[in-house]
Amino acid sequence: MIREIQEHRSIRRYRPDSIPAPVMEEILRAASRASTVGNMQLYSIVVTTSRPLREALAPLHFNQPAATTAPAILTFCADVHRFSRWCELREAEPGYDNFCWFMNGATDALLASQNACLEAEAHGLGICYLGTTLYHAGEIARVLRLPKGVLPVMSVAMGYPEAAAPLTDRLPLEAVVHYDTYTDYTPERLEALWREREASEETQRLLQENGLPNLARIFTERRYAKGDNVAFSRKYFDEIAEYGFFNQ
Amino acid sequence: MIREIQEHRSIRRYRPDSIPAPVMEEILRAASRASTVGNMQLYSIVVTTSRPLREALAPLHFNQPAATTAPAILTFCADVHRFSRWCELREAEPGYDNFCWFMNGATDALLASQNACLEAEAHGLGICYLGTTLYHAGEIARVLRLPKGVLPVMSVAMGYPEAAAPLTDRLPLEAVVHYDTYTDYTPERLEALWREREASEETQRLLQENGLPNLARIFTERRYAKGDNVAFSRKYFDEIAEYGFFNQ
Repeated sequence: MIREIQEHRSIRRYRPDSIPAPVMEEILRAASRASTVGNMQLYSIVVTTSRPLREALAPLHFNQPAATTAPAILTFCADVHRFSRWCELREAEPGYDNFCWFMNGATDALLASQNACLEAEAHGLGICYLGTTLYHAGEIARVLRLPKGVLPVMSVAMGYPEAAAPLTDRLPLEAVVHYDTYTDYTPERLEALWREREASEETQRLLQENGLPNLARIFTERRYAKGDNVAFSRKYFDEIAEYGFFNQ
Repeated sequence: MIREIQEHRSIRRYRPDSIPAPVMEEILRAASRASTVGNMQLYSIVVTTSRPLREALAPLHFNQPAATTAPAILTFCADVHRFSRWCELREAEPGYDNFCWFMNGATDALLASQNACLEAEAHGLGICYLGTTLYHAGEIARVLRLPKGVLPVMSVAMGYPEAAAPLTDRLPLEAVVHYDTYTDYTPERLEALWREREASEETQRLLQENGLPNLARIFTERRYAKGDNVAFSRKYFDEIAEYGFFNQ
């Protein structure tokens, strides 16, 4: 059993101490050992530690404390640019400026990110995935000076934790696992799967704070409302095209 | 340092022995500990072990030996269906049938997959990511009876290795890492980064087998040619829409 996997928690506030270079190198080396489509390594990792650049990135992550306090932001990008330039140098015609290869690059980037996070945790560091990356991928790309063929898919805040954090609850394992084929969810099964979370003290506190009758409505009305979701969907999709991943 | 990360190799042939249920449960539990957007767990894992279903899946993975010999195929899917049904049960209006939330679900699925693979390797199992999943996502969805709102993003072959496999080479670490902002690649730098791989015995063998003058052309002409890439891009994108992830 891999301890780091079991003990992972998102860390939302960091001490200002920077990450020693040899530790960062082990983290990046761990990232590079992840599987990659065709061993083409269609991703890049931008490790941002300079204060002005972190200050430029923080508002793009809505100034969440993880982004404002972490001494390092690692931005994992789908990258077909490097491979395509190498092809051209060899007079081979690259054909990776399309959606399938955006997905392949995103896959490479995400598998590498998970290795990096686990390795960081093995060194006593904390991490927080910043899902906000999708909302401002184009703006982040401009801060990081990404060329066409390179687009952020995920950022990770990384540093030494300011304080310990509790393990996050999960739905019962059977909620996400299906055997042989997909078993659809009856209302009774959904009730059973969410029962514990809905009854928790944390949920009661959230309902009071938000003045809403149930947890689902906190998600659909406060956290991730339809209008925003659609707007960010269009924006990210447009950026995929703008950065040259939709020539099809 | 996490040993499993360093020692990962893709295993392409498996012994027929099935994976004991308690081991599979630890693997799936490890998957469920990965970070997930908003703790919404927008993914499902379909664990396929029955022979007829594996025989239905194998051709969709081009009958590669990993897919034909592995006793288990784990298909990691973006899944907004379960969460949306729960929202409806609570009279909350879900708004997750769009591209941003396909990406969020894909991210959840891929981070979970990497945890599962590392945990499997800690138990002496071997794994192989099947990038072919994107090529036949719709067909796989029909075999696995996925409803709208659920689409495969990655499959993993898993089982006890038939034989040991060598560690795969990687480009030098500096190929994929950038500090603060992106440093573009000059021709000289590309030459240096690919030098070792291009000079390897493995590359020489491939050039002879394929009758081509360089490694890049093996990628662009034999392995992943532009016409196929574009066709699979269109197909996967259409399936994203067909499975209800592009209502924007």
